[in-house]
Amino acid sequence: MIIKNIQDVAAQPVKMDGARDVTIRVLIGPQDNAPTFAMRLFELAPGGHTPFHDHNFEHEVIVLDGEIAVLTTYGPKPLQKNDVLLIDANEQHQFKNLSVTAPARFICLVPIDYQK
Amino acid sequence: MIIKNIQDVAAQPVKMDGARDVTIRVLIGPQDNAPTFAMRLFELAPGGHTPFHDHNFEHEVIVLDGEIAVLTTYGPKPLQKNDVLLIDANEQHQFKNLSVTAPARFICLVPIDYQK
Repeated sequence: MIIKNIQDVAAQPVKMDGARDVTIRVLIGPQDNAPTFAMRLFELAPGGHTPFHDHNFEHEVIVLDGEIAVLTTYGPKPLQKNDVLLIDANEQHQFKNLSVTAPARFICLVPIDYQK
Repeated sequence: MIIKNIQDVAAQPVKMDGARDVTIRVLIGPQDNAPTFAMRLFELAPGGHTPFHDHNFEHEVIVLDGEIAVLTTYGPKPLQKNDVLLIDANEQHQFKNLSVTAPARFICLVPIDYQK
């Protein structure tokens, strides 16, 4: 059994094109020999966002805190704490922090092969 | 894309032998056609606990709130908010709410085949 706090895992900047002021912590992943899926924490600084992008695997997300919107081809949708999302493979999406003063955080899980 | 709040999903009592005052909400699972893994919310009433048990698949857990301890063959270990756990397949474990007044909650993910 592996136990750690999210503060024990170093935050790394997300360097993808289109990302701004966002970090990732791979909380549980290949480094732990997780066999099926990986748990990551994303933190968006005020105004920060992930890229508007898609990929051939799904996301499962839970919003921890902050004023986050998810953008899709249908437009933006504001989220609230404890919202959960299933983003299908090949579905375009982006997460934005709508606040100009406070950070925002969400957990995002992916199949393990895509975290390696 | 599926978006819902954890309050939108009905809590079901966990009826396994050895469980006491614990409910499960399958937040994202087979009902959503999740392809790889399922996200569930467990709520422990004061003094509530899951069974001391094991199974042939892993758990990934994040503690949301409350005074939870995880018990293993090595004894109990208190957890705190935002602790994350990887419980390996075939590893015995139990979650207990140590509080006699307040509920406690954690998210627990499993490979999708084991939620069906």
